[in-house]
Amino acid sequence: MKYKVKSSTQIFKGRLINLHVDEIVNENGTTGYREVVVHPGGAAIVAVKDDGKILMVTQFRYPIQKTIYELPAGKLDKSEEPALCAARELEEETGYKSDNIIKLGEIVSSPGFCDEILHLFLARDLKPGNKNQEEGEYGMLTYEFTLEEIETKIRKGEIIDAKTICAIYLAKSHLVPVFLT
Amino acid sequence: MKYKVKSSTQIFKGRLINLHVDEIVNENGTTGYREVVVHPGGAAIVAVKDDGKILMVTQFRYPIQKTIYELPAGKLDKSEEPALCAARELEEETGYKSDNIIKLGEIVSSPGFCDEILHLFLARDLKPGNKNQEEGEYGMLTYEFTLEEIETKIRKGEIIDAKTICAIYLAKSHLVPVFLT
Repeated sequence: MKYKVKSSTQIFKGRLINLHVDEIVNENGTTGYREVVVHPGGAAIVAVKDDGKILMVTQFRYPIQKTIYELPAGKLDKSEEPALCAARELEEETGYKSDNIIKLGEIVSSPGFCDEILHLFLARDLKPGNKNQEEGEYGMLTYEFTLEEIETKIRKGEIIDAKTICAIYLAKSHLVPVFLT
Repeated sequence: MKYKVKSSTQIFKGRLINLHVDEIVNENGTTGYREVVVHPGGAAIVAVKDDGKILMVTQFRYPIQKTIYELPAGKLDKSEEPALCAARELEEETGYKSDNIIKLGEIVSSPGFCDEILHLFLARDLKPGNKNQEEGEYGMLTYEFTLEEIETKIRKGEIIDAKTICAIYLAKSHLVPVFLT
């Protein structure tokens, strides 16, 4: 896809996101208009206890006005390594830490208007750490579910967070080797 | 979670998204700041041919500057029924239509800063319709993959679109009944 940027107008520079609007000309001569949200990206983590239970949290999400189940997750601090972000958010949100973290993959949440990339991880060998919830995480609770319980909640529509569903999908081949056969 | 909105400032009203910034006071007295992208929502569809192959498209996504595999999908036109949106996008993007469409579920793409809800559908009994790609879909190609091929692409990181991974996950229990046992 070849195109030329005719104009790019910065609309907003926020604490979390920036927004710009671009006018482009495609190589076939048609013109296009793009609203682009720039996001620092984030990380989410499937943290599995020795008994096989997976840590989930509930958080009130202001834009959708709902408290939803999610994996521990957060946005990348400036030039933060995604694995460090995942480990940090795991400890801050649940009080568990791990030295056994592997990467499951990366996803894009809304590529039509936003550049957000979410890095997905799997943590095992959990150890006690220090919980430290931020302002927006006030009221966050930690839950422990089996993989089967989580999959049932996804199918029933009780887990609707995209990154959580994607990470569970990717983690499953590590947690249930038979899935790969 | 109880809070009061201290101020809400409209930053941008665009063709696709709006943006507002809110200052809130939580019930515990802490203050919060929220950047909120308002999006009309969208629909995506797992369309399965009689031979079991699933339709995928490739699209250049300007915010991430990459051409990626996705299920046929699009944003809701004003007060459009999500199932009609899914059927419309399927026909416009791939040239197939269906009268056998069921809902798989709903997901939120980025609930930390955006209210976007994506409605996920499964279509079978496909029939020829009329392709009609929009400006931003210039260069879009249609592919047909088996479920196994798609799952391999997800595990290899060749499919990174969150709604696509979530919809395949949810469709799988309909396409592979053994998955539920």
